[in-house]
Amino acid sequence: MPSQVKSPASEKPSAAESNGRPPLRIALFGFGTVGSSVARILLESNSEGLEITHVYNRKVARKKADWVPSSVVWSEDWEEVVASDVDVIVELVGGLDPAGTWVRRAIEAGKSVVTANKKLIAYHGVELERLAAQRGGHLKYGAAVAGGIPVIPGLEQGLAGDHIRRMEGILNGTCNFILSKMEAGAEYAVVLAEAQAKGYAEADPTEDVGGFDARSKLAILMRLAMRVVVDPDEIVPQPITSLSAVDFSYARDLNCTIRQVSRAEEVGGEVAATVGPMLVDRNSPMAWSRGTENMVILNGRYGGDVVFSGHGAGGHPTAVAVVSDLLALAHGSRRVPIPSVPAKIGAEFEVPHYIRFLVTDRPGIVAEITAALAREQINIRAIVQKAGYPAESLPFVVTVEPCKSSALQRALAEIGKMNCLLQPPLDLQILE
Amino acid sequence: MPSQVKSPASEKPSAAESNGRPPLRIALFGFGTVGSSVARILLESNSEGLEITHVYNRKVARKKADWVPSSVVWSEDWEEVVASDVDVIVELVGGLDPAGTWVRRAIEAGKSVVTANKKLIAYHGVELERLAAQRGGHLKYGAAVAGGIPVIPGLEQGLAGDHIRRMEGILNGTCNFILSKMEAGAEYAVVLAEAQAKGYAEADPTEDVGGFDARSKLAILMRLAMRVVVDPDEIVPQPITSLSAVDFSYARDLNCTIRQVSRAEEVGGEVAATVGPMLVDRNSPMAWSRGTENMVILNGRYGGDVVFSGHGAGGHPTAVAVVSDLLALAHGSRRVPIPSVPAKIGAEFEVPHYIRFLVTDRPGIVAEITAALAREQINIRAIVQKAGYPAESLPFVVTVEPCKSSALQRALAEIGKMNCLLQPPLDLQILE
Repeated sequence: MPSQVKSPASEKPSAAESNGRPPLRIALFGFGTVGSSVARILLESNSEGLEITHVYNRKVARKKADWVPSSVVWSEDWEEVVASDVDVIVELVGGLDPAGTWVRRAIEAGKSVVTANKKLIAYHGVELERLAAQRGGHLKYGAAVAGGIPVIPGLEQGLAGDHIRRMEGILNGTCNFILSKMEAGAEYAVVLAEAQAKGYAEADPTEDVGGFDARSKLAILMRLAMRVVVDPDEIVPQPITSLSAVDFSYARDLNCTIRQVSRAEEVGGEVAATVGPMLVDRNSPMAWSRGTENMVILNGRYGGDVVFSGHGAGGHPTAVAVVSDLLALAHGSRRVPIPSVPAKIGAEFEVPHYIRFLVTDRPGIVAEITAALAREQINIRAIVQKAGYPAESLPFVVTVEPCKSSALQRALAEIGKMNCLLQPPLDLQILE
Repeated sequence: MPSQVKSPASEKPSAAESNGRPPLRIALFGFGTVGSSVARILLESNSEGLEITHVYNRKVARKKADWVPSSVVWSEDWEEVVASDVDVIVELVGGLDPAGTWVRRAIEAGKSVVTANKKLIAYHGVELERLAAQRGGHLKYGAAVAGGIPVIPGLEQGLAGDHIRRMEGILNGTCNFILSKMEAGAEYAVVLAEAQAKGYAEADPTEDVGGFDARSKLAILMRLAMRVVVDPDEIVPQPITSLSAVDFSYARDLNCTIRQVSRAEEVGGEVAATVGPMLVDRNSPMAWSRGTENMVILNGRYGGDVVFSGHGAGGHPTAVAVVSDLLALAHGSRRVPIPSVPAKIGAEFEVPHYIRFLVTDRPGIVAEITAALAREQINIRAIVQKAGYPAESLPFVVTVEPCKSSALQRALAEIGKMNCLLQPPLDLQILE
């Protein structure tokens, strides 16, 4: 606070004063990195109108922290906490189960819920919102996508008047950390180990590197931005594990780098959506995103492109989103309901592609590949073959002009029969 | 809308249904670029719950549009419209007067107000919000800063839980258009004429190029982000008119470009704030912002940097913010009140500077300048003098390490006495 304060008392209504209600009684479900950050921020910023009354955690004794007010009830009995006089459950454990049960039971009991659980919201958000509306509580999940970046509040409160037709995002900080390190020359296995050591990646990294985490977040954003409810399982993710150093080297020659991108688009009245590693221009916003940063680009019919970026994960940034949701609840700020309709992922992207082959060299390979592409009416943009690789394990790249994914898949299925291939061709979208 | 719609009717509650109220009756004050965009979006998106009932404009007959429903009352009597049964006045005329009178009278009559008027909100926002709270209406101004980019909703709804200590923004699209064109080689007067022809700049461009528009927006963001109420007049803007092509050339040699930047910071418990042309790294987000784009970077104690960018002005983007505010009002979504305290701009930035001299060359100039800087304990970072300029009108540049503005001003006052100077030295902050 600046020192030239004139009349702080008269200018700073407490939440309790401003809405005439007693403080919001809060139960934290989960007291790990994010849960303890939420508690820290609430205590340090002295947020009037918000009071932590309960902490639920398995083996709660080992979680007890001496900086938390002694009035807080520490419990390992979730039913007891849900049955108590708390107003809001803050669910920070994640996953469909048992977190889904806690959230459902809390909402059924008329409580409000603030959650960072992208999986639960992606798969059951519509149903849980409907339930909350019936029982008089509120469900808020600003922390579920892009952590500390206010994409969800921005969509609900600032872009509800637009019609978002296309979106692209870097929604998984773990993949972005790995890929931006690989861009700088490191090998996948080495960076993954570093990410695990730093706590950015789980012991089993499949949820992140396989694209499953990102597709949950994409499904949530598609509902709020494009207003379509999709089954996340219909979004087929491409893992980043198939990339190797040679792809970053070829990408650089094409003035690109590689990021895990989640994208969705209205195409001829249908929706297309995918998650996977893609080539992005080195001078585009996507390429600026380094380390665990996230980024979301929304293209609106009226407002054009809007870009959000920042720290998408981590205890403090995620906790900022949770605390902001709690403040909004305490002040009676309701969410702006965004109408949505169920939709199938029925459309295809029509974009340029990067295809990297690994072959044992022999005459005629390029002729056969280009002939297979030509049969599907796919135009070649460039053929790049760098010097310095051995003929018995030779990587080279073909980039193609925008084409339907299905046509390219047919061509690659033909090409896949060639006995010179040491592995299936790697096919990446190019983001333009 | 995608074609695979399963049950649109059951999924799409109208605003009127969802809050049990009749549609919000809206009066548009001003039917220029933004006003007609608001009407277009409301009609095209068939926003249930929102109904334009009145349009107020001077000489309204020439504004009447055949695509607007015939039920709309066109009026040039503002008091009649305020006295009618409208629920919300949308004020899009701008300026302190008479717009301030209309807004005040509407709020006094218990109406809500949605406005894009940055000047009114910067100078009278606190008072008008208090009045609205007393009279039961709401005041929303998401369009007042950065047009179609949801910075204000993001701050109120998604970052209220953080403590923003520093912010930088490109808040004036006209200046950004001019400077990004000058970066590409054009001269100021030529680009200004182009901006005027395209409708980006007024016949009298002082409000934009002088930094007055940006400082109003900075004052609004300081209140919502840093929670300090400052008198915008205390923010001394530096005009972009003192720049010339040689500055862009020198900036390029320093791996920078020049943007009009609005910045504010907490320094030792006080606030510093300024608006003016600054050197920004060519690889930083600020440099990516081209044309009429805006950008805001907020640095939070807990969440770190959050970046917003997009189209900050223009009819459609601004209208998106207005329509989003109207939807929030229609759905009873209250603003999250951000407590704030009055503050003086009492602190100084301690940042590196770029100082460009224009001299008639003679021996000893650099020695005198560097001696004057040394007397104020200011360390020189670099001295750059490009070849190819005539000795009788020689531009050269000195960059200095972070120093207090007051110390640099004292040194420049001394240096300003040198008779070799053809004009006062140009002093720009370097953003790092």
